[in-house]
Order: sequence, then structure tokens, then C-alpha cells
Amino acid sequence: MADTTAHTVKSFDEDIAQLRSIITRMGGLCEVQIAGAVDALVSRNVDAAMRVVEADARIDLLEAEAEALAVRIIALRAPLAGDLREIVAALKIAGVLERIGDYAKNIAKRASALAMAPPIEPVIIVPEMARAVIGMIKDVLDAFVDRDVQLAKAVCDRDQRVDDLYNSLFRSLLTFMMENPHYITPSTHLLFVAKNLERIGDHATSVGEMVHFAVTGIHIVDRPKTDDTSTYSNTPLVPPVA
Amino acid sequence: MADTTAHTVKSFDEDIAQLRSIITRMGGLCEVQIAGAVDALVSRNVDAAMRVVEADARIDLLEAEAEALAVRIIALRAPLAGDLREIVAALKIAGVLERIGDYAKNIAKRASALAMAPPIEPVIIVPEMARAVIGMIKDVLDAFVDRDVQLAKAVCDRDQRVDDLYNSLFRSLLTFMMENPHYITPSTHLLFVAKNLERIGDHATSVGEMVHFAVTGIHIVDRPKTDDTSTYSNTPLVPPVA
Repeated sequence: MADTTAHTVKSFDEDIAQLRSIITRMGGLCEVQIAGAVDALVSRNVDAAMRVVEADARIDLLEAEAEALAVRIIALRAPLAGDLREIVAALKIAGVLERIGDYAKNIAKRASALAMAPPIEPVIIVPEMARAVIGMIKDVLDAFVDRDVQLAKAVCDRDQRVDDLYNSLFRSLLTFMMENPHYITPSTHLLFVAKNLERIGDHATSVGEMVHFAVTGIHIVDRPKTDDTSTYSNTPLVPPVA
Repeated sequence: MADTTAHTVKSFDEDIAQLRSIITRMGGLCEVQIAGAVDALVSRNVDAAMRVVEADARIDLLEAEAEALAVRIIALRAPLAGDLREIVAALKIAGVLERIGDYAKNIAKRASALAMAPPIEPVIIVPEMARAVIGMIKDVLDAFVDRDVQLAKAVCDRDQRVDDLYNSLFRSLLTFMMENPHYITPSTHLLFVAKNLERIGDHATSVGEMVHFAVTGIHIVDRPKTDDTSTYSNTPLVPPVA
């Protein structure tokens, strides 16, 4: 009887390890996709951008695999309390990573469009935003695998810097568009690219909150949002001073 | 023994009914929030917009309630196959509705900013987009509650119209900004409002796909995306003819 119990426990751990490994692979692909999309954007490389668009399907497949495995674990093992919380967190994290992959794909699509337009200067802030969110994804998934609540919280705090970069780029782009109305189309694409990266930061933060809940059973108290551009309205009729 | 089984089955049905009822309440609130945000936008009513922003917390609370109930049902009843699939779908749908609520909140924030800027004409397409996505949310949740696969698929097909409206508004706004560079800030907000509504349509579609999978166990084949604005790049140096 002791043997059976040990066997069951061991198999459950193996199941969880497999689920964590799928999530880690999804996270690694997301990092590669974001970096690839932003490289294609900066180097104005349409072929590279197209490869990123095509590669997104692999993240979608892994999400379906994670979901199927999570459901199988629940059905076969009927896990309780902490174990169940971890599986539900894995299910939700897989969903978030799938969306992060979609954002990377969208950046790559816009990179193709931008490669056909004349280069615009505010693009230089984009790689810095990308590095910041890639670091957040990497660390928040380490926190998930290691059940490291402190690291998960630290990642949440780093979203502030992504929001600051976004706010700065948003304002630069508005000024740039007002001064160069002919560049409005590429600037608009870059605005959405920046918004996608800002949303990736939000999603990495929400994963941090999921990890915190999975490990402790307690929700992190709501942090304030610091993307303040949605209420940005000062003197819209007067272009800001450059 | 027959009595015990009947009792267990009945209780499980009650649990599922309670979970469906939370999802339905979330959907109803999402509809009210989108309509409220867009009304505030069109009527330039900052107070109404702020009320929408504050009311979003109710959707977040309901999501936490749905998740807690779903986890409790899984832990207590260890549902199998179709039942488990339905609970996992409910969990995911609650997450999607929470995000739809966030989009409505963001529209309300931008409505406040827009109320302080001079009125711009392309705003007239927004209520039409809002009506389309509200109808999709309503019908897709009816499909979820009634396990109606045909209705779920029909809702997915309606996303095309939302994408068409978005593409049309996107192009109008670009033209508008090029002709009136001083209106770039409010136009940018409206661009994000339109994008939020387009994303709500995508999310309603993904709920349709979740309902399809929950009922049939089969994934709908990937439909093509028809928001083509992310690759829009024709003659960015030359403003389009009005």
C-alpha cells in the first residue's frame, strides 16, 4: 500500500514537471519571438518578420498541449488545494503566453509594413522596451518553476519601467506625427508596436500575480496602473514643444 | 445507493448552474460597461466615463468568484470528460470576460481624455462597432448557457463585420490625422478605442470557439484574421485622397 502511494505521488510530480516544462518552452519561444519581431523591425527585414509570423503557430500548439495535459492531470489524479491551484495557474499562464505570442506576431506584421515606409527616428526606444519585457517573462517563469514568490513580486515591480518607456515613446510619437504629418502611417504602426510591448509587460505582471497566488493561496493587492497615456489630453490643438 | 447518486448528480448540476450564472452576470456587466463607455465617449460625459472606470472592479470580483467556484467543483466532484471540459471552458471564459471589462474601462478612460479635446468627426463609427460586439457577447454567452454550437459558430462569423468596421475607421482616422495634424492626439485615442472594440470582437470569437470545444470536444479549424491594418502601408509619404 505504501508502494502504491509513493508511486502515485511520484507520478503526480512527474505530471507537474511535464506541465512546467511545456510552460517553460512556451516562455522561451515567446522570448525568441519578441526579440525576432523587434530585430526584424529595427533591421527592416521583411523575411525575418514573416518567419516570426509563421512561428507563432508553435506557441498555439504548446498551449493546446498544456491545456490537454492539465485537464488529464485533474481527471486522473483529482489533485487538491495547493496542487490544484498550481495546475489552474499553469492553465492560465499557458493562456497568457499564447496571447504574448500573438502580440509578438502582431509586432512582426507591423515590422513588415514599417519596412516599406521611410525609417522614423522614435523606433530607437523599441529595443529597450523589448529587452525589458523579455527579461520579465524569463524571470517570472523561473519564479513559476521554482515557486519563488519574492522573484514573482520583483517582476511585477519592474512593469513600472516598461510603462515609463511606453509613456515616453507615446509622447515622442505624438510630437513626431505633429511635426511630420506625412509620417503618420508608420508612426501609427509604431504606436501599436509600443502598446503591444506595454501589454506584454502587463501580462508578465499578471503571471507574477498568478505565481504568487498558486504558491501562497493569497492574491497580491492590486497595484496601480502607470500607463497614463489613455488619459493624456493636454492641449491637443497645440503641438507640444519639441 | 440510487438516492446518493441522484443527489450527487443533482448537486453537480446545481454547481454548474451557479457557475453559468456567474458567467452570465459577468457578460451582462461587460455589455453594460461597453455601452456605458461608448455613450460617455459620444456624449463627452466625463462623470459617466469615470463611473464606468469604477464599475470594472465588479467584473474582476466576479472572475475571482468564478475561479474559486470552478476550483471547488473540480476538487469536490472530480468531474470527468465533458463535465470537466465545461468547467475548464467556464474558467477560461471568465478570464476572457475580465479582459473585455478591461477594454471597456480603457475606452472609458480615453472617453475622459477625448471629452477635453475638440470633437472629431470619425467618432460616429464607434457606436456601430460597439453595438456589433455587444451583440456578439450576448449571443455567445447564450450559446454557452444553452450549449448551442450553431449559435457559437454564427457568432464567430460575425467578427468579420467588426473587422470591416475597424479597417474602415482606421483608414478614416489616418486620413483625418494627415489633413488635420492638430487633431492627432484625439485621433490617436480614437484609434486605440477602435482597436479595443476590435479586440473585444476577437475575444467574443474566442469564447465561441471555447463553447464549441466544451460541447463537442473538437476545436474549430482556425479562421483567417481579417484585421488587415497591421500590414497597411501604401504610400505613407503621400496622404490618401479624401
